Amino acid sequence: MNQTTAPFRADSYPEHTIGRLMENPVAVFPGHLSVAEAVERVRELATKRLFTYCYIVDEAEILQGVVTMRDLLLHDREARLDAFMLRNPFVLRPEYPLMEAMRQTVNRHYPSYPVCDDRGMLLGIVRGSRIFEEQAVEISAQPGAMVGVEREERVNTPFLRSLKFRHPWLQFNLLTAFIAAGVVGLFEGTIDQIVVLAVFLPVLAGQSGNTGCQALAVSLRGLTLGELKPGRENQFLVKEAALGLANGALVGITAGLGMFFYATWQQTAVSPYVLSAIVFLSMVGSCFLSGVSGVMVPLTLKKFGADPATASSIFLTTATDVASMGFFLGIATLWLM
Amino acid sequence: MNQTTAPFRADSYPEHTIGRLMENPVAVFPGHLSVAEAVERVRELATKRLFTYCYIVDEAEILQGVVTMRDLLLHDREARLDAFMLRNPFVLRPEYPLMEAMRQTVNRHYPSYPVCDDRGMLLGIVRGSRIFEEQAVEISAQPGAMVGVEREERVNTPFLRSLKFRHPWLQFNLLTAFIAAGVVGLFEGTIDQIVVLAVFLPVLAGQSGNTGCQALAVSLRGLTLGELKPGRENQFLVKEAALGLANGALVGITAGLGMFFYATWQQTAVSPYVLSAIVFLSMVGSCFLSGVSGVMVPLTLKKFGADPATASSIFLTTATDVASMGFFLGIATLWLM
Repeated sequence: MNQTTAPFRADSYPEHTIGRLMENPVAVFPGHLSVAEAVERVRELATKRLFTYCYIVDEAEILQGVVTMRDLLLHDREARLDAFMLRNPFVLRPEYPLMEAMRQTVNRHYPSYPVCDDRGMLLGIVRGSRIFEEQAVEISAQPGAMVGVEREERVNTPFLRSLKFRHPWLQFNLLTAFIAAGVVGLFEGTIDQIVVLAVFLPVLAGQSGNTGCQALAVSLRGLTLGELKPGRENQFLVKEAALGLANGALVGITAGLGMFFYATWQQTAVSPYVLSAIVFLSMVGSCFLSGVSGVMVPLTLKKFGADPATASSIFLTTATDVASMGFFLGIATLWLM
Repeated sequence: MNQTTAPFRADSYPEHTIGRLMENPVAVFPGHLSVAEAVERVRELATKRLFTYCYIVDEAEILQGVVTMRDLLLHDREARLDAFMLRNPFVLRPEYPLMEAMRQTVNRHYPSYPVCDDRGMLLGIVRGSRIFEEQAVEISAQPGAMVGVEREERVNTPFLRSLKFRHPWLQFNLLTAFIAAGVVGLFEGTIDQIVVLAVFLPVLAGQSGNTGCQALAVSLRGLTLGELKPGRENQFLVKEAALGLANGALVGITAGLGMFFYATWQQTAVSPYVLSAIVFLSMVGSCFLSGVSGVMVPLTLKKFGADPATASSIFLTTATDVASMGFFLGIATLWLM
């Protein structure tokens, strides 16, 4: 009689899947066993390893049901296991990504779950707490992944390894920054004439970047927790676009007032009213685009099969930098030059 | 005989503590019970609720030990529970923050944990998977918290509530952006003479911001997973400062080359060699400060009793904006004006 099913190698499954967390099931019994026989076997096995459930399989090792220690305690010694076992138990598949497994088990709270292949053959078990533990460690890598830190980097990663992990993304970020600089460069003549515009460039860029990162963070959380499902994406996109618009308008008023006082104080050649109107308009436009980008960047990464968090903040700020400074200097050039 | 201990109200404990996740323990027995008596009680209780362990308490409801269903199955019917119960079981305290509980349970993987007060009185039980489930949901809020999204905001939070949550932080971010703008404003005269400097402002700001966010993300992860312990903070600070220096130097070379070609192409009045040296130096200086800020911002927030993630990205980019653009324009002014 099998005590374990066919041997498996956890490392033959892709990273971040249930297969990687599998252990061998300890107590695997045929359904014709009596309670007394099962207790005898449990007695032997219990000296070797801890386990929570007994798994009932047929000759082909197809999972038929689950029996708890309490079942063994409370049923007649002569009863057959298949007479009272829990049939059609909830099972996981080894190829499930951790996120998917977390979503399926979050309302069950079993100490462990059987893992079966598509024919129902019992491959192993996974402890519930391991799913969520791995998941917590996994999710804690997200803020880093957004700015180009590898998921495996931790506080105690050696210096050279950290440098190797992070540096390529910083060079990539620099390339994207050159794009934003190129946009500013297009309007060098305008800045040359109205130098106060240069002072407000970091305000536009910083503000639209932060607005976009808010939308990005909520999108990523939705993807992580399984709340941002296909079909609900458009509705969420509309909400974030509207939020960008509303936040842009309200923040644009403050920023416009800032420009008004600064330009009045500096006695600029251009009317402070016009300058503050340009700040307001470009803030509304760029925050609207920030909201849209905050949703589209992770969804696009996901669509191309990438982790939706990877470098998402770098892609996002490229879009928000180009849009915000492009709008600002573009409107100024059209209006004033 | 008590089946449950003194009634408790989970909502009387602060949010994100173990107390909030407590349930009443089902099987609570005195130690003098025999296995046969305990099995009889388990038989009654099992019809009402699911439970994993029996808890053994004295007259004052102080937890004495834990008995598993397997223990009941495998011991003599006449044996007293206190003869074989597991003494001094691992317990949690209701006031433990979830992070602390996660750190203590991560290598245990028990289906549930008893929760006791400081006298050892059994207050309730907490399922292991609930700790990690809450933790996963909690950690998934971190990228949002960094840019001013409330921890409770999710994809389906209504529009007005999202606006109310996020908007105050955006106005706050604008105030900090004004500080950065003020620094640029100090050097308006320099920009007026050498307008190419304005083109490279977003490069310096974007690059040092992303470098700092990498350090910030790894710091926050260390705090979340309990790896960044007091005493190891200085060592980590030195590492991140050195990483900032190294990344700043390597990225500074690329950025300096970018400035060299741009200035040569634009035929600027100032030597392209000098301009690219200024880009290089300010990149090294500001990325060094980014690394330091990425560690100091969350540690400072924590020291003041705040969540180390809260608005951390906003504080960080204020520091990196001011430092990077201040260095860049400051060095240019000292060298060229």
